[in-house]
Amino acid sequence: MSANGIITLLTDFGWQDVYVGVMKGAIASINSQLQAIDLTHEIPPQNIAAARFCLLNAYTYFPSGTVHIAVVDPGVGSQRRGVAIQFADGFLVGPDNGLFSGVLNLSPAIAAVELTNTDYWRTPNPSTTFHGRDIFAPVGAHLASGVSLEQLGNSIDPDSLVKLTLPELTITDNKIIGCIQYCDRFGNLITNIPADAVIGQCWSAIVENRAIPTVQTYSDVPKGEIAALIGSHGWIEIAVNGGSAREKLQLDCADAIEIKKF
Amino acid sequence: MSANGIITLLTDFGWQDVYVGVMKGAIASINSQLQAIDLTHEIPPQNIAAARFCLLNAYTYFPSGTVHIAVVDPGVGSQRRGVAIQFADGFLVGPDNGLFSGVLNLSPAIAAVELTNTDYWRTPNPSTTFHGRDIFAPVGAHLASGVSLEQLGNSIDPDSLVKLTLPELTITDNKIIGCIQYCDRFGNLITNIPADAVIGQCWSAIVENRAIPTVQTYSDVPKGEIAALIGSHGWIEIAVNGGSAREKLQLDCADAIEIKKF
Amino acid sequence: MSANGIITLLTDFGWQDVYVGVMKGAIASINSQLQAIDLTHEIPPQNIAAARFCLLNAYTYFPSGTVHIAVVDPGVGSQRRGVAIQFADGFLVGPDNGLFSGVLNLSPAIAAVELTNTDYWRTPNPSTTFHGRDIFAPVGAHLASGVSLEQLGNSIDPDSLVKLTLPELTITDNKIIGCIQYCDRFGNLITNIPADAVIGQCWSAIVENRAIPTVQTYSDVPKGEIAALIGSHGWIEIAVNGGSAREKLQLDCADAIEIKKF
Repeated sequence: MSANGIITLLTDFGWQDVYVGVMKGAIASINSQLQAIDLTHEIPPQNIAAARFCLLNAYTYFPSGTVHIAVVDPGVGSQRRGVAIQFADGFLVGPDNGLFSGVLNLSPAIAAVELTNTDYWRTPNPSTTFHGRDIFAPVGAHLASGVSLEQLGNSIDPDSLVKLTLPELTITDNKIIGCIQYCDRFGNLITNIPADAVIGQCWSAIVENRAIPTVQTYSDVPKGEIAALIGSHGWIEIAVNGGSAREKLQLDCADAIEIKKF
Repeated sequence: MSANGIITLLTDFGWQDVYVGVMKGAIASINSQLQAIDLTHEIPPQNIAAARFCLLNAYTYFPSGTVHIAVVDPGVGSQRRGVAIQFADGFLVGPDNGLFSGVLNLSPAIAAVELTNTDYWRTPNPSTTFHGRDIFAPVGAHLASGVSLEQLGNSIDPDSLVKLTLPELTITDNKIIGCIQYCDRFGNLITNIPADAVIGQCWSAIVENRAIPTVQTYSDVPKGEIAALIGSHGWIEIAVNGGSAREKLQLDCADAIEIKKF
Repeated sequence: MSANGIITLLTDFGWQDVYVGVMKGAIASINSQLQAIDLTHEIPPQNIAAARFCLLNAYTYFPSGTVHIAVVDPGVGSQRRGVAIQFADGFLVGPDNGLFSGVLNLSPAIAAVELTNTDYWRTPNPSTTFHGRDIFAPVGAHLASGVSLEQLGNSIDPDSLVKLTLPELTITDNKIIGCIQYCDRFGNLITNIPADAVIGQCWSAIVENRAIPTVQTYSDVPKGEIAALIGSHGWIEIAVNGGSAREKLQLDCADAIEIKKF
């Protein structure tokens, strides 16, 4: 697999400031033929778990050889490593703090390097607070332009990469207990229970001590009604047709969700 | 007219999640040479009327042959049709729920198909909740790459497309009564009264029982003062210089606006 | 220096409406090979000082020959001039209201024109409220496509361009008094005191009558603690590790900041 000239960007920088624009400038300065696609820049500040979820649920929709740059980096300027990773579908570039562990759980790392070769940085004296601009964007741009992983720094053992794992599911014959791992803009509550866990079975989500309807799509219940379904990401999701499940149920990330199988 | 390789995207997905990024991934996976331009992704959730307004006021600024993908889709996964439409200036792709009816009112459909040919979908088993990713983005990418409309599915009668019409204006010799059809980020109140309705005449908007100044541009009144003008979209608009007419007047979408002609 | 085909866009239009998308349509209609990169569109409405700061801190990261279009334009439609400016690193296009004066303070104008040649506008009868679409985007697109500055209008004296200057610093042997010139999404307070002012010296920021720690990066203090550092923009910055200095200190733009040197 070789790089395809496409870069994705995922950060917690928001759109208010010029941070994202400046990363694209750093990329265009290296190779103006590259295509930089925004995944999201609205990760809640420093929320590595949300970044992990978003990247995990986005990478499969990009062509093979895409370079994913992700910068949610509370430890910027500290001893945490900057890394580049090759996996079956492409490359990952960013801080080694667990934000890639969702992707790598599905598609293991083939090789990894610590970003020690300053030749591929924007400057050998990077800002201590903005490695996105000075290290990760330039390194990603070089990788997307055909530079090999090995040139970017010292090889490291993929097993040494920081892992951020989800809470384990509690699974019995007739019950699964998981939790909400992400809330989207619509207020849909996305659990950490994969579709696989209920495949071929009848199931129902228990909310406030009662079973709610299991449906195919939002509009299968009347407006304002709550339902559970397999969401587009492949996880069990609690939603309200035309409304916000988060607000209606006053549930949020990390709250427990119980699924009954029958 | 043939496709020009440019796609626009208009949704209510917001920037918080990776939904928009993933649609671009689906497009790049089909043809990485296409150019995807965001119109807006901040349509209020499921507000087809706002989407209709935004698309209507944007499409004319794009070159001939542009493919406009619009996904504000409260009925996703239900029986509502997915459609692709050819009109004089380009192509439209999305759910058949009226969001294209503003464009088609100005520039009628030449041909339309229901999206029944799964060969042009990302997968023959699309998610029941995210047709933007699995159907509309891929179909739009194929169309922008030169696939003909007819290949995408069964031909349908353009007259059968769902229409979403604005409330009728009440027009007399000396008065027009319309309503606010859209409020923008600046708090400008955009009415459904087109510039044509007052062309060559003197006119004044009546707000709170008094006529407000009719001006050429915002700064023709002092800061904080209210005025009426022909906005950049070509509709009569109520604005406050350096402020928000929406807040100052406590008016919002669907509220009535009266214009006096003299 | 000649144009490189890259355009940056900085406005206060936000992402809610289609204004930004429409500017990109106007650009693509002139030359679909150009690359338009968003710097930010979330400048607070009509805040020229914030726009000046953002452009100043972004332009150096783009390759030579980039065209920067900036539209924060409270005087749109009035007598204020529209201008295009050549400087050592590229071109600037927008209203002559001071928003370019930060860039030009660092890298002076080589030549400037008033945008009087309507051949390069979208229409000779532009909207009185949206010159971004009808004048600045088209002019920028032509400039990025190789049209020379001189063709765009009448030459003007660069000294006549409107200047927006920051408040002067008060500098004594052991003290610098400056102010906050910008607050970013993270709540970091960015002062108008450049790193140069304290280079090679020990310094400490005084907040609420006590010296706060001077650090290299955010994580050098415990979570929730306040610190001062040289930010990625090259200005002294007050930050809270993992939090918002703006909220914690209840400080905002224009508030004074004192630095002690020792």
